[in-house]
Amino acid sequence: MSAVAVIGLGRMGQPIACNLLKAGYEVVVYNRTPEKAEALVSEGARLASTPGEAARTTGLVLTMVADDAALEAVVEGPDGLLAHLPAGGIHVAMSTISPELSASLTRRHQERGQFFVGAPVFGRPDAAAAARLRIVAAGPTEAIERCRPVLEVLGSQLFVVGAEPAQAHLVKLAGNFLLASMLEALSEAFALTRKAGLDPQQFFEIIDALFGSPIYHAYGQLIASQRYTPPGFTIRLGLKDVRLARQAAHALQVPMPLASLVENHLIEALAAGLQEVDWAALAEIAARHAGLPPASA
Amino acid sequence: MSAVAVIGLGRMGQPIACNLLKAGYEVVVYNRTPEKAEALVSEGARLASTPGEAARTTGLVLTMVADDAALEAVVEGPDGLLAHLPAGGIHVAMSTISPELSASLTRRHQERGQFFVGAPVFGRPDAAAAARLRIVAAGPTEAIERCRPVLEVLGSQLFVVGAEPAQAHLVKLAGNFLLASMLEALSEAFALTRKAGLDPQQFFEIIDALFGSPIYHAYGQLIASQRYTPPGFTIRLGLKDVRLARQAAHALQVPMPLASLVENHLIEALAAGLQEVDWAALAEIAARHAGLPPASA
Amino acid sequence: MSAVAVIGLGRMGQPIACNLLKAGYEVVVYNRTPEKAEALVSEGARLASTPGEAARTTGLVLTMVADDAALEAVVEGPDGLLAHLPAGGIHVAMSTISPELSASLTRRHQERGQFFVGAPVFGRPDAAAAARLRIVAAGPTEAIERCRPVLEVLGSQLFVVGAEPAQAHLVKLAGNFLLASMLEALSEAFALTRKAGLDPQQFFEIIDALFGSPIYHAYGQLIASQRYTPPGFTIRLGLKDVRLARQAAHALQVPMPLASLVENHLIEALAAGLQEVDWAALAEIAARHAGLPPASA
Amino acid sequence: MSAVAVIGLGRMGQPIACNLLKAGYEVVVYNRTPEKAEALVSEGARLASTPGEAARTTGLVLTMVADDAALEAVVEGPDGLLAHLPAGGIHVAMSTISPELSASLTRRHQERGQFFVGAPVFGRPDAAAAARLRIVAAGPTEAIERCRPVLEVLGSQLFVVGAEPAQAHLVKLAGNFLLASMLEALSEAFALTRKAGLDPQQFFEIIDALFGSPIYHAYGQLIASQRYTPPGFTIRLGLKDVRLARQAAHALQVPMPLASLVENHLIEALAAGLQEVDWAALAEIAARHAGLPPASA
Repeated sequence: MSAVAVIGLGRMGQPIACNLLKAGYEVVVYNRTPEKAEALVSEGARLASTPGEAARTTGLVLTMVADDAALEAVVEGPDGLLAHLPAGGIHVAMSTISPELSASLTRRHQERGQFFVGAPVFGRPDAAAAARLRIVAAGPTEAIERCRPVLEVLGSQLFVVGAEPAQAHLVKLAGNFLLASMLEALSEAFALTRKAGLDPQQFFEIIDALFGSPIYHAYGQLIASQRYTPPGFTIRLGLKDVRLARQAAHALQVPMPLASLVENHLIEALAAGLQEVDWAALAEIAARHAGLPPASA
Repeated sequence: MSAVAVIGLGRMGQPIACNLLKAGYEVVVYNRTPEKAEALVSEGARLASTPGEAARTTGLVLTMVADDAALEAVVEGPDGLLAHLPAGGIHVAMSTISPELSASLTRRHQERGQFFVGAPVFGRPDAAAAARLRIVAAGPTEAIERCRPVLEVLGSQLFVVGAEPAQAHLVKLAGNFLLASMLEALSEAFALTRKAGLDPQQFFEIIDALFGSPIYHAYGQLIASQRYTPPGFTIRLGLKDVRLARQAAHALQVPMPLASLVENHLIEALAAGLQEVDWAALAEIAARHAGLPPASA
Repeated sequence: MSAVAVIGLGRMGQPIACNLLKAGYEVVVYNRTPEKAEALVSEGARLASTPGEAARTTGLVLTMVADDAALEAVVEGPDGLLAHLPAGGIHVAMSTISPELSASLTRRHQERGQFFVGAPVFGRPDAAAAARLRIVAAGPTEAIERCRPVLEVLGSQLFVVGAEPAQAHLVKLAGNFLLASMLEALSEAFALTRKAGLDPQQFFEIIDALFGSPIYHAYGQLIASQRYTPPGFTIRLGLKDVRLARQAAHALQVPMPLASLVENHLIEALAAGLQEVDWAALAEIAARHAGLPPASA
Repeated sequence: MSAVAVIGLGRMGQPIACNLLKAGYEVVVYNRTPEKAEALVSEGARLASTPGEAARTTGLVLTMVADDAALEAVVEGPDGLLAHLPAGGIHVAMSTISPELSASLTRRHQERGQFFVGAPVFGRPDAAAAARLRIVAAGPTEAIERCRPVLEVLGSQLFVVGAEPAQAHLVKLAGNFLLASMLEALSEAFALTRKAGLDPQQFFEIIDALFGSPIYHAYGQLIASQRYTPPGFTIRLGLKDVRLARQAAHALQVPMPLASLVENHLIEALAAGLQEVDWAALAEIAARHAGLPPASA
């Protein structure tokens, strides 16, 4: 299998398609606004005019789109994946979507003799470009094995967590929940120590030494310096993911009070007009509650 | 200054005294139950019969005791530090105590022309034994500089955060709050993924890769395997510290809803009889709320 | 206008239809399972075979069904209200539904020249039977005035809160949120006082005197005696409504931490198998957290 | 027994002493600042120069002071109640104090052959003046019976809840927790409906009808109109009481997440400078979180 389709050429999809080209794959791309495909086409990718065409001509489709609604839009309809993916073909959903949609797609693809694999990723655009994504995959063993070479081109680690694609998407949400929780914890700790007159930069260094984690390092630095632009990942997207985590928890009858706490603070950040800054700006909410001055513009 | 007193020979105080002996200091020790001093005495330490005697004969006292009450007990009274530490002598409080007590001791020592330094530590007994503690110090510059060589014997990193000893004790509480918050986040994430049928060990490996932190590694492993004995740090002590953090936050007028959330879950763990197991057992509370089976005995 | 259709003959719809018959209205009824209409038919109601038929022959339809999905089911499709309600006809939605669905129905009815009115109610089946419901209505003034006589037959109080039907449905959710919050508060207060050895019945009497409210009286009594069957309103339905309130709050960018707290406890109750008992059983969750013995079966 | 001492002549102690005078008791009063006694003295009360003198000359002392510290101040020391109350004499503690202090006073009075009774009250100064307080009492039966006639002069209802005085003080804290929880619930409900464009006054009327409670009526009116001065009971005092409730809950190992939630919002109100306005201003915190405009000055 040497042809692969990549649908969705945003900040993550572009470097993914690019790496597949470099690895020698025949790459077919599709994007709602075709302008985004230009650079890839100039490097040898072929532009499909519909998601269905991309599916039909490759039999292996990676989707990397914004959310549940965007994925539904490329899957359904006369030009969609479901209608055109050949029997035995594979749809690998790499976006962060709801386990509910993942389960629904599993069923719908199965009814047509197609395979569905969940393979969301941890890592930002720079990690995608460096082929250092961490990929969490779930689906039928046969399908996973068939797309394993492709996934190994894209990431430095591949975790196969189960036979149900929705399990991979749930793990992704659980991971983002852990990140959001870390942000809330840092937010409150910085508010406490700032109000006590401690130097945020120095407190950052202590936390950095304590956790010894690149994640704490990166986010601790943003919060210590109160720099929330340009965003790596926005408050708006963070809220979307925490909300999906909570809905999945609700469906599984799992209380998640910390997810709720973070969700409410993210809503408050939205109400305060912070939707498009980095979600490390959650720290501004804790600071505000403590009566501390806001980050200067 | 070549003589140092160490008061409190528990699991942290013992290796601290031992490292000072190895470094060539003349070490005077005191413990409420003197039997704990035997090994140190056989290695050359001198046993004082009261805290006051230890203070009088060294002029530099490190205290490493259980809590506020235990520290008050060695400080006050006719045999206590306050009555016997020479003018210009230094009391270095290395225990995790309330910023309130720290501020009170600052004042009381000052009234007698003595110095008070806060120098709580991050690290467990094994880190103390390996002289790899992380020490957060605060106090008058002169006093800090005088005890710096001693502290550098004990730890691999020394952070000086301010002139008020209470600031160091606050940073320690903020750090423990971050650890407790991490435990709550892991607890909810494991409950969610376990209920969805995922393998906890596999989820642990993903988290481990995501955070790349020795702290997440150690605690993630405990929670994935539901092994909470022998305890590294107990639910009971965790609750004590989270409570101190919240009281300090209250005094500074800083809301800390995540600290409150963890506090309530630790209280629930206490009510469930889990006081003496490792505080990673916070995960049992989240599991119980989700209707998951408890860790087997 | 002397003909009225009542769609949904559950525990609330039945007494509503009955009161309209008594008041002299010509009543057309529809229920998914027609057996529930028998008693009403024997008292003079006419049974329609589809929602559309009920709408076409009366021009004024009251719907009182289980939830959003049930309302969609009677509204849409070739036999639904939208297709058959005459231009100028009125659909009065008395169920507790999401403001989102309410807004969508407003638009859909408007497109067909029909009127849509929100008129959810406070009160249980006994209040419906006694025509003592409290009705919160919103919609176009003309439509409200046309159905006012009908609503006044059914309730003892009618509050008109705005021109947008969704506003009435939001007020209903806010009211149910207040009830749920009261239950959580009572739950924690009873757990505290029970654990301190106080007699729950006596604590109930004090609360009863303090609040002087029939609502606190009724629910306080249930919690004091730990009697949760037969249910007046179940945990399952309570969770549905609190969840709708939170979703509406989310859409309006309003953080509601207390709603989240209650939501998580209701989820925990569900996970514990309490879905079909009275939602006063929220008190069992607080009791469990405190290590108190459960209500005996 | 016709002589009674009243210690603490604040907004509650004054009308209490006054009612005892009217009922024919010989009343001895004491206040830290004696000027507050003038009106009572002119009506026939006798002014004692120390708490001890008041206790010695009456054998029955009612204390109504600000907090734990104030009560300790009149109880301890050479001029305090403990030193001067005759054996068999009774101290009735009517203030809202911690169950911990209550238990400690129980023990200390007992050691001297004196009786200690807890008898905190529900009701504001106007209820005290009208002798319509609700009194919750606990203590040894003999002592309760001896002071019953006095208590019946002061209140319209007397609830005897147990033999341990601390139980009465716990019930008082539980009651104030219920009030604070109601305020939080109302705060979030008003924020939600205000942001949806509903008229607060109209929403108030619906709540008022729903709960039918004078307490909801009074507080709902304050929140609907955003009028928080003059305060009936301040944010600062509310926080004190919620904190005492949480500490008592902690000691009994009872998680109270709703108490924690309210506590954090009251701390936020303090940090925002609202300490001396009515605690109904908790609603301003929910409004602020929702991005709503603050109450105009």
